[in-house]
Parts: sequence; structure tokens; C-alpha cells
Amino acid sequence: MTSKLLKRTHMCGTLHSQNINEEIVVNGWVQKRRDLGGLIFVDLRDRTGLLQIVFDKDISLDAFNKAETIGSEYVICVKGKVYKRQSMNPNLPTGEIEIFAEELHILNTADTPPIYIKDDDVVSENLRLKYRYLDLRKPSMQNNLIFRSKIANIVRNFLTEDGFIEVETPMLINTTPEGARDYLVPSRVNPGKFYALPQSPQLFKQLLMVSGMERYFQIVKCFRDEDLRADRQPEFTQIDCEMSFVDMEDIIEVNQRLLQKVFKDALNIDIQLPIQRMSYKEAMERYGSDKPDIRFGFELVDVSKPVKTSGFKVFSSTVENGGFVKAINIEGYGDKFSRKDITSLEEVAKTYGAKGLAWMKIVEEEVVSPIAKFFTEEELSHLLKKVNGKSGDLILFVADKFDIVHDALGHLRLEVAKRLNLLNPDEFKLLWVTEFPLLEHDPEENRYVAKHHPFTSPMDEDIELLDTAPEKVRAKAYDIVLNGHEIGGGSIRIYSSQLQEKMFKVLGFTEKEAWEKFGYLLEAFKYGTPPHGGIAYGLDRLVMILTKEANIRQVIAFPKTQNATCLLTNAPSFVDEKQLKELSIQIQTQKES
Amino acid sequence: MTSKLLKRTHMCGTLHSQNINEEIVVNGWVQKRRDLGGLIFVDLRDRTGLLQIVFDKDISLDAFNKAETIGSEYVICVKGKVYKRQSMNPNLPTGEIEIFAEELHILNTADTPPIYIKDDDVVSENLRLKYRYLDLRKPSMQNNLIFRSKIANIVRNFLTEDGFIEVETPMLINTTPEGARDYLVPSRVNPGKFYALPQSPQLFKQLLMVSGMERYFQIVKCFRDEDLRADRQPEFTQIDCEMSFVDMEDIIEVNQRLLQKVFKDALNIDIQLPIQRMSYKEAMERYGSDKPDIRFGFELVDVSKPVKTSGFKVFSSTVENGGFVKAINIEGYGDKFSRKDITSLEEVAKTYGAKGLAWMKIVEEEVVSPIAKFFTEEELSHLLKKVNGKSGDLILFVADKFDIVHDALGHLRLEVAKRLNLLNPDEFKLLWVTEFPLLEHDPEENRYVAKHHPFTSPMDEDIELLDTAPEKVRAKAYDIVLNGHEIGGGSIRIYSSQLQEKMFKVLGFTEKEAWEKFGYLLEAFKYGTPPHGGIAYGLDRLVMILTKEANIRQVIAFPKTQNATCLLTNAPSFVDEKQLKELSIQIQTQKES
Repeated sequence: MTSKLLKRTHMCGTLHSQNINEEIVVNGWVQKRRDLGGLIFVDLRDRTGLLQIVFDKDISLDAFNKAETIGSEYVICVKGKVYKRQSMNPNLPTGEIEIFAEELHILNTADTPPIYIKDDDVVSENLRLKYRYLDLRKPSMQNNLIFRSKIANIVRNFLTEDGFIEVETPMLINTTPEGARDYLVPSRVNPGKFYALPQSPQLFKQLLMVSGMERYFQIVKCFRDEDLRADRQPEFTQIDCEMSFVDMEDIIEVNQRLLQKVFKDALNIDIQLPIQRMSYKEAMERYGSDKPDIRFGFELVDVSKPVKTSGFKVFSSTVENGGFVKAINIEGYGDKFSRKDITSLEEVAKTYGAKGLAWMKIVEEEVVSPIAKFFTEEELSHLLKKVNGKSGDLILFVADKFDIVHDALGHLRLEVAKRLNLLNPDEFKLLWVTEFPLLEHDPEENRYVAKHHPFTSPMDEDIELLDTAPEKVRAKAYDIVLNGHEIGGGSIRIYSSQLQEKMFKVLGFTEKEAWEKFGYLLEAFKYGTPPHGGIAYGLDRLVMILTKEANIRQVIAFPKTQNATCLLTNAPSFVDEKQLKELSIQIQTQKES
Repeated sequence: MTSKLLKRTHMCGTLHSQNINEEIVVNGWVQKRRDLGGLIFVDLRDRTGLLQIVFDKDISLDAFNKAETIGSEYVICVKGKVYKRQSMNPNLPTGEIEIFAEELHILNTADTPPIYIKDDDVVSENLRLKYRYLDLRKPSMQNNLIFRSKIANIVRNFLTEDGFIEVETPMLINTTPEGARDYLVPSRVNPGKFYALPQSPQLFKQLLMVSGMERYFQIVKCFRDEDLRADRQPEFTQIDCEMSFVDMEDIIEVNQRLLQKVFKDALNIDIQLPIQRMSYKEAMERYGSDKPDIRFGFELVDVSKPVKTSGFKVFSSTVENGGFVKAINIEGYGDKFSRKDITSLEEVAKTYGAKGLAWMKIVEEEVVSPIAKFFTEEELSHLLKKVNGKSGDLILFVADKFDIVHDALGHLRLEVAKRLNLLNPDEFKLLWVTEFPLLEHDPEENRYVAKHHPFTSPMDEDIELLDTAPEKVRAKAYDIVLNGHEIGGGSIRIYSSQLQEKMFKVLGFTEKEAWEKFGYLLEAFKYGTPPHGGIAYGLDRLVMILTKEANIRQVIAFPKTQNATCLLTNAPSFVDEKQLKELSIQIQTQKES
């Protein structure tokens, strides 16, 4: 299979009518071969697209004879001349031309591939992952990877021009207290000890600020050993930034320009600055989510007051007992939801903890609802005014504790929008969410844990609440949300060792524990640490949204399954006893122990 | 320590006489404070350099009073006006000006740092690594990291413009047979199984070629659990490329232009193309090394023939027994080496296995040498002619088996050049070394192992030697050498599954073993694999040479020691029993077993 490799002159997809009469050399894969009227037609594919090649005995008998032997996915090199095509194919960029082959060199043969190399092939994802190298031949997958590469390049050049230095932080680090579960790496040279793979370069990028690097970035692999969801992978890629001598406004300013650049250069979409902002509190109250999708309305409205006095006990007693009743108005879409549809929406609400879903339709000025009878006319009018109810609307109610009401209605508005086909993937709505709570109470450990991470600074005006009401302390933290997905987040960091020590105390660490776990950071903070903060984006998720894919595996070359395995290489795998012995470990599965 | 953060107008090192009379705001670290004649002088440092700030009671008493409290490495913000300096400092880029402070904001205090923040501080490397965040404040270290970032950016943009796509390959992969020792990562979800961290993205980049990506690159962390040398780290960074439909000439062509671009844009040095080439055989014969430093001569000359008949038994019997006698002529430097010096050179030769070092000096047409008496005048004249011996020269001889002669003399010429101060770090000499042997015989395992890796293609004209004389087969492999360091290497790959299977057979694998270890690659090769090849550069080493550093740790932000530990964070460390249990492993140190 050593055949002549001619110097390629063109990529297949780049040829067009201006090239007519040129002598060209192309390489690629056989997409399809058809024998028709004494001629052989081959659709040749490379990274740039398809090109029709014609083999004609009268032009080259040798090429024609070889062409008779080739099949799908053969790798060939063709030398020939560009002609205007008899029957043009308007669906193909190269559809105006075809190549009459003068030479054919078969560079490699191919067995019949187990999956079709076309975008609309319906085949199990497991088979696609097993033969990933064939799956990646599909134009959509190639374009996703090319697009991803482009995004990374835009980001890198923007940040470099803005004075950011790309610094590589280590992959073999210490296990992190206060994070997700680490992947561990046994050390051979230090028996019994382990490295961890980084969940993020957080501590190192802060140390780089202590080092006076001032502006750092990195596009870097991070690792979390957590159970996987559709948009999670054991290893994922972050665009990671950190800046010194800045407050939140400075970081938002740089990142808005970055996002504007990405949308413009990658998608030719103009993002108007400033990007809209919303406090965490407002996001929760209006959208029932800290990452609201603001492409559509259906906002949450608090109707606790107007329903408090009603005869509908479910509502009035909830409010009396300190709970809430909130509603969303599916304005103008009342006739799209039958009773059966509403019952299925109730099932959705129940998966988020709601005990039920009350509803009202307004049909020709008339309220149609199983619960209408419990309201006086005045109460009803008051209620409808509050939710802006008009003919044609459907109003959905949930009554419960704060968290359940917001969680259930937040997801319901998404579900309704999805059913109404309002989630337009071509529309991109960005939103900054700010003023997150600094802490969350962990009922399991019965202590406060950091909502972002323990290095996030409290807001200056809330610092004194750390002693009295930690749950009320807001953080200098911000997320950037795109179409209901958190694509990035960050914070201004604590940069005083005293405040950092205090934070650890609030998290329930003794001074000794804090120094054992984070001593080198507390020590570093003593030697002149500048004010600093940063942000990290999830590159996989960002690319997934921008390519309008539903699954993160569509934008990763060699992803892992939900079970964290690679179906192509069968990683992870068993290893030799000798390797384990060198690492001073042995396997102890649950059964054996 | 919450102090006002004014909007910075300038970086310290960028101010000059054109800024005189401007109101400016700068941030930075206090390099030095001097109180002199009722004024306080502060050298303020940021990433760009130093700037002199003057505090004068008459301008601002408040700023002056605060300035009296600040010390080294305090973090401050200064607002003030730029003035022409009374006594200019020509050693400082900002030496023509100084700032008279109107406002001083102390952003953070600093304890006395355990190491000085200046390049000429002499302190143990261990202390520097423990306080790496302070060590990285030194201008030389900051410049190294900035330079490294610049190199990566130049490379990425060059390759992107040349049609290469950056694709991220996985970090959690399968353990590699036939490589160095892997770092292993136990899988929690698949008890008893392990991932390995990649030694290189070799197999994945080849699979990307099978996928039709055509041109791939990545700047990527790789891992090898080997004992460390001065220029090795457990994790290191590769610039990794792969191309389809190419032969060696295509790869060399792209990479020559890449190197030319790097030298031009990073150092403003013009590299003349084509870069010099040399076969492995020629490199070994002329320089005793497969990575010759060609900044200087002292080439190896084979004198086996002229000495064969001499009366010097060490030489003649070596040649008679199939060995070699080779010489290097230290032309013109004879008088730089005393007998004592030569004795110490002999010690160097002995560390590479030589039994001794013979020598001749030519002093005023006279041969001075302990072995001269064993040669007839004709033999001597013949010998000197062969090595171009002239008055003032020193000629060094080693007689032994091929490997020892070349290894010893190859290192001797380096040692001599070092002692003569001929290794000019400002001179950059690039060299392609080609036609490497495909295989090496491993005496331990008594089988052939791949010199590069098992996917390297043999040269077409040598394929039939695979059956008859595997050790003679040359590979389509090439290294790029800079000043005696291998900075990169690559090969054209095998792309036929038959040839790949044959290669595994030569390496001593049964068909079953080959399929167990590399089945997915052999399988992939069946479905239309294009001819392909690539190269990988060691970024750390490249940056080390270009920055003229002697140690690779000088160009890595957070390196590890020879013991693979991080002195800053104390990684690796012991972990909780709970973590090990989740991973189904336990520690089994040698003592316990």
C-alpha cells in the first residue's frame, strides 16, 4: 500500500467555477461511487467538503480500471482537470464543477465501515463512540471541532492583546479539601502519598497574583470525579482568568468585551454592551433560577398577598404558615394547553417537590379553573390584575416553601417554553447574575459551606454579618449566563490573611485545620498580596451552546460515557501487578474487604 | 485592609519623559524605601519595571505620613504627577522621571519576605521553590514566563494560519504498553481499573488523522513517571502536530517555517532556510551524538586505518579486534590544556566507558605525546594528515568498540568546548537529524524495541530488511536539534494495518498480544487511513534554550523537585482512608508486605 503521493494543489470543498480548466490534485475519502453510462462517478470528501470526480476510459483507462476497484472510505489521490458540470448540483458548494480524472492513486483501502459517514445516520451513540474515528469524519462533527478550535484561538488572542499572560499551572497537585471528589494519582517515589488532578487552577492562579503576574489566563483541563450528567465529563476544559488591582466592574468590563469578540468573530453576531445584570435575589424571585433563560417571559409573580384571604385553603394556609404562592402567566398561550397537558405539567412540578399545580385559564373574559369558586369576584380581579391576566392566558400556581415554589415554577417556565417551541437556539441572551450568597448551610455536615469556594470575598457592606448572620452575607461573585446555562463564573477573592482565616473559621475549621489544609496560601497572603479576582468559563458548555448541540459529547473529540469509560480504547483498564507494586498500592474491592 | 482602589492609568515601567506633568495612578509593590533629606523615596515595582515615587510633606502630609509606615513588598496605589528627575538614573528605563505623590493608598501590608526579590539574590533553590510566589516576583522569572507565553502564542497562530486545528485529546487514557512508566489514576466507578495520564497524545493524534482532521495540533501536558534529571519534570508540555497526505519533506517544510517565525518574532533572529540536515549515521560518525551541537567543530575523525599498523598495541589490537580508533583535533587550543587538564579530560572519557584517553600535542612542528614513540615518522605524518594536525593543536584519541568511542568522544568535544567557553548562548544552530534506526536491540528483554515508537514507518527501501536484518532498517524519523539539545522529533507513521501488524511481530508480540494492546488502532487502520506523520516539540526545553537558562525549572511556574515533590504545596501528600476506600485501593508499602 505504498502509492505515489502527489503534491496536493487544492482542498476538495474550495474548488469552484473559477477553477475551470485548471489541472488540480486532490486527496480524500470516497464518500460514494456510482457507475453510470460507462462512466464512474466518485464523491470525494476531505475536511472542506465534497467534490465530484469522473473517471472516463477515454481520458485514462488506467485510472478508470483502478476506479472500478474502489469503495466507500477508500483513501485516494486524484489528478485531473476541472470542468463545468453538465447537471449542476445547487446543494453542493462545488456543485457547478466536476473533475475528469487523469491519474488515480489508491493510498489506502477500506473495509465497509460499521457506521455511515453522514450526519443524518441514526445509530446508537455507543456505536458512534466505539468507532469515534469514523464518527468524527462526519461534517457536523468536524465542524464542531473546527469551531471549538476557532473559539479557543479568538479567546487566546483577545486575552493576549489585553495583557494577559498564559501560564501553565501544574496537573499533579495536592488533594483539595472543600471541593468535589478528586481524581488521585499514587506517587511511586513517595510511597503512600498521592497527587490529585486539579478541579481548577484556583489556588495556583491566586498565587500567580501574589507573584505579581497581574493578568493570567489559561485554557486548561480540569477534573472532577463526580457522577456524570448529560453536560458533564470527568475531564473538562476551562478558560481560566485572574487579574490584580481590580474590582468586579473591571472584570466584567474585560469579559464583556471578550464575549462580544467571540460572538462577532465566531458567529458574526453583535452583542450590545453592557450585558444585562441581575442580582441573585432578583433572578430567584423573577425566574426561580440563578441562571435564568431570559429569551422568553413567563416571569414568577408573588400572589401570596391577594390569595392570603381567599377561601382556597391550600393557598391561604400556606401563606399563613410562612410559605409563598407564586404564579406564572403563560400569556396568550391558554388554548395550547388542554387539561391533559396541564396534568402533565403538574407531574413536572411534582418532580421538583411541589405538592400540586393550580391553574386558571381566561377564556373570553371568563376564568375557567377548578379553584375559581374559592375566590370572591374582588379577590379574583385583584389576583388577575397582579399577574396581568387577560383573555387567552393560562396562569399556573405553586404554593409551598420558598425553595420549592421557586424551583418548581422556575423549571415549569422552561418546560412550557420548550413545549411552545420558544427556545430559539439562534437567539443568544447573555446575563450577569451578581450578589450571590457567600455561604450555604449544609444540613448533612451541619455547618456552612462556601457557595462558590472558600476564597470568595464577601461584599464589603456585609462583612460584619459574618459574625451575626452568615447566611445573609452576599459575595463579590458573579456568573455569566447564556440562554439558561451558566457558562462562566468568578469572584473577587479575599486577599487579606486575616479575613481568609476568619472565613475558614465560619466554615467550621479550627485555626490548626485551616493551616494544615491551606497553610501555604495563608502564608503567601502575608507577603504583599494585591486585590485580585477572576473568572472561569466552561469551554465545552460554551461551544455546545454556540454550536446548538444538545449534548456535550458532540463538541469533544474523544469523550467518555456516563460510566466514565472510553468505548474506543476501553479505558480504564486493569494494569499489571508490577505497576501496582511499584506504586505501593493494591486493589481492595468491596467484595474482598 | 479594604482601601480605595483608584483606576490605574499606567504601568510603572511604561512611563517616561513624554509623560512629564501628567497626573497618573500606579499600583505595585514596594521594592525599596529610603528616607532622605526630609523626603521619602520609594521604588515601586510592577510587571513592567520600577518607578521612583517621592513623598513630600509639602505636597501631601497624609501621603507622607502613610509612606512612613510602609516597607518592602507592601502593595500600594499612588496618585501623583510626573516630574523630570533631578538626578537621572541611566540604568532604569524610567530613570528620567519621578512621581511626586498626592495620594497613597496602602492596599496590603507585607511581612519581611524570606527571600530577596532581586535577580542576583543567592539563595538555595529549595527556599526559592518553597516561596515560589516570591521567587516569581523577580524580573527574570516574570520575563521567562512572559516569554514562554509569547512562544506558545506565536506557535498557535502560525499553525492556525497554516490550517492546523487545535483538538484536545483526553488526559484520562489507557496505560501504554511499550513506553516509559505511566502515572496511573484509579477509577472509582470501575473498581480495580486504572486510567493512565498520557505520555503523549500519539495514538489519539493518529486516530484524528484516521478521522480526516488532516492537520492537528495541540500544546498539551504530558506525563512520565521516570527518575528526574535536570531537564526533566514529571509533567512537561509538548507542542504536538500531525498532518495527513504528507511525507517527511512536507513536515520539514512546515516546521522550518514555524521555527523561522518563532526565532524572528520572539528574538528577532533570522534563520536561513533550509535548515541543515544530517543523517543519524553521519551525526554519529562526525559528532558522536544523534543531537550534535554544531556551533563548533572538533569533529570525530576515524584514524583506525593509519594506526592499524602502528606499534601502539592499544590502537592496533583494538582495530584488529573489530574496534575503532577515532580522534578529535582541538585545533589551535593545544596550549590551553596542561597535562593535568588532559588527565581530567581522561576522567570525563572514562565516565562514558573509555578505558583511557591518548593524546598528541603539536608544538612548533614537533609532536609531543607519550605515545609518539610507537609510531614511525611515516605513520605519524599519515595520522596527522588525516586529522589535519598543525602546530598549536591538541589531538585526543579513544580506541574501543563503536558505541564507546563515539559516546566518549562526543561528550569530550562538548566538555572541551565548554572549558574553552565556545558554547555561545546567543548563537542558535539548528539541525535536522534523519534516517534514525527503526529498532534497537534490548539486551534485557532480548528483543527489538522501537527506537522512537512502534508506529514509526520504516523507510520504503528498507522494508524488506524487516525480515532479514531488522537492526539495519532505517525509519522515516527526524529530530530537530538546537545547540546540542533535541527540541523536537517525529516521524512518518505506519498507516497500513498489515505493516503495523508486521512491526508488532518484529517487536516480539504475538498477534493476540498486539490486538490486546493496540487492537483499536489496528481496527481503525482498516477503514481508510491516510498517509500521515507528525512531530512534537518539548516546549519547556525549547523555552529554556531560548531564554539561555541552564535549568528547566527556570521556565516553569510551579515545578517539582528531583524527588517529584512540590515544595510550595507539599504535594504529593497522604489522603483520607475514605478516599482510598472509594477508589477500592489500599496502600501496601514494601515494609508491610
